[in-house]
Amino acid sequence: MKIVVVSGGVGGARFLQGLVAAVAPADEVTVVVNTADDLWLFGLRVCPDLDTVMYTLGDGIDTGRGWGRTDETWNAKHELAAYGLDETWFGLGDRDLATHLLRSMRLREGRTLSEATDELVGRWSPGTDLGRVRVLPMSDDEVETHIATTVDGTDTVIHFQEFWIRHGARVPVRAVEYRGIESARPAPGVLDAIAAADVVVLPPSNPIVSVGPVVAVPGVAAALRSASAPVVGVSPIISGAAVRGMADQLLTGLGVEVSAGAVARHHGARSADGILDGWLVDTADADQVAGVESAGISCRAVPLWMRDPATTRQLATDVLGLAGDLRDGGR
Amino acid sequence: MKIVVVSGGVGGARFLQGLVAAVAPADEVTVVVNTADDLWLFGLRVCPDLDTVMYTLGDGIDTGRGWGRTDETWNAKHELAAYGLDETWFGLGDRDLATHLLRSMRLREGRTLSEATDELVGRWSPGTDLGRVRVLPMSDDEVETHIATTVDGTDTVIHFQEFWIRHGARVPVRAVEYRGIESARPAPGVLDAIAAADVVVLPPSNPIVSVGPVVAVPGVAAALRSASAPVVGVSPIISGAAVRGMADQLLTGLGVEVSAGAVARHHGARSADGILDGWLVDTADADQVAGVESAGISCRAVPLWMRDPATTRQLATDVLGLAGDLRDGGR
Repeated sequence: MKIVVVSGGVGGARFLQGLVAAVAPADEVTVVVNTADDLWLFGLRVCPDLDTVMYTLGDGIDTGRGWGRTDETWNAKHELAAYGLDETWFGLGDRDLATHLLRSMRLREGRTLSEATDELVGRWSPGTDLGRVRVLPMSDDEVETHIATTVDGTDTVIHFQEFWIRHGARVPVRAVEYRGIESARPAPGVLDAIAAADVVVLPPSNPIVSVGPVVAVPGVAAALRSASAPVVGVSPIISGAAVRGMADQLLTGLGVEVSAGAVARHHGARSADGILDGWLVDTADADQVAGVESAGISCRAVPLWMRDPATTRQLATDVLGLAGDLRDGGR
Repeated sequence: MKIVVVSGGVGGARFLQGLVAAVAPADEVTVVVNTADDLWLFGLRVCPDLDTVMYTLGDGIDTGRGWGRTDETWNAKHELAAYGLDETWFGLGDRDLATHLLRSMRLREGRTLSEATDELVGRWSPGTDLGRVRVLPMSDDEVETHIATTVDGTDTVIHFQEFWIRHGARVPVRAVEYRGIESARPAPGVLDAIAAADVVVLPPSNPIVSVGPVVAVPGVAAALRSASAPVVGVSPIISGAAVRGMADQLLTGLGVEVSAGAVARHHGARSADGILDGWLVDTADADQVAGVESAGISCRAVPLWMRDPATTRQLATDVLGLAGDLRDGGR
């Protein structure tokens, strides 16, 4: 079986751990990772979602924080601050720096982000879950999510990372823009993977800044709509709140209700020019199943909390179960 | 009094500490720093001599090693090695990385090395000896010293840093090349500082790879020869051996005797198309004074070992004393 996962950072990475545990050895897992969180920082190309997926599956992640490297130190960052640089709100660890240095060096040598990612992933794959997953950036072209907001009474547009890390998502969201998306092309392998997939999964990643940019890359939405595989998503909202991150602030800012059902309807049914065939909500949100189904999306309520390897694996199994039923029953 | 010092790394930086202690508050000290040790490493512009001068005078140096930052950690370097990168023989500390990141970012923004250096120095100057010194790179153009050598039986040409750090100067020196020197221009302020100087000092820096490249920048040797100030040097060789570094290997490779007198004759007397008016040898090399003087260079034997602040300050005082006598007596 060929499984394609469209992923952001923490939620997607954790789901992938469960998926690797749930699938058979012959199954092929490809993850298409959001790169619109990426930014240039101190001359380095930083790719938060790619790195979170890589470090998580490669056993290099700081599991407490959920991002960045284990046993991390922060000396370079402190020194950059001592030089008076302003961007030191971003969590740039000393170990993590090596990843950004290598990636940036390759990009400057003319290699693509896909090629640089292959090299980085190659270090972490042997003997880890990462070895079971093919990692593709959504695009080799630079796309950066910017947030139109108001800071200290002044309307401004800032990079998503500045909104999230520097301001803690505590400034209002007036609009979201995927800068560069119009001219971005899907990275090599992305469209082929979707076309060849038996299942496409949207893990519980942020609908606006994680899944949103991937689907917005020209050609990806069409590929999802024409895929023979069912597209099944997992709600990142449980009981009206984001499991992690700032999805609620973003949804509210864009006028989308913060609920499991509203996010499904935001993505929309494939039968109605959207991208979803199936959707999983948490058992706490069982009352939303009917509303999702009435939008043309098959919906089930199952436990969504990925508390430990067992519950995470079970969630992956539930996703594959719904997808299997959709395949068997037609859509 | 205006004093110009032509400096490499450790020896020059230490001499400058003594000089700052020796001069009067109204005296102006300018250091022209060798940049031919510089290299691109992992996409970062690393300037070993500039940084050694900056960290030493700015109280940021690791005094035990004599280079790099105090309280340094090496996590990024270890991670780069884990990614399989080859250049991890170079000592790239996590704190030090911030300096290279800021410098490289500025260079990519189109700023000159002089401008980047000003910004870096600005952090370390307040309240330290660095605040008493104007720091100029020898050139804003890239010059890199390469060594023609033989490694494992194969003739090759390698960057000076690879010769020194990776091979510990234990491979033969067949030739030394300052790559890029023909088209390099003196950095802004260098020629003016030499022209306006009351004294020009060559501290005990390596004659081949520290002083040599600075003098080889087109225009600098002519400026030294036409300067109204006496040019006084301090021997980096004591009792037939380099005080530190690999000057002896380089001198031997180029057919220059490893002695205090031979280095003076290598630089040559200004009266004979060289650059020196005066030269200090160690008291242990008093027997070489006559040979240096016969080459047209005023020479004195004084204690050269910079063991502590007092001896270092005394050496600077001795340099200024010889220069003063040369000025008073004409050359």
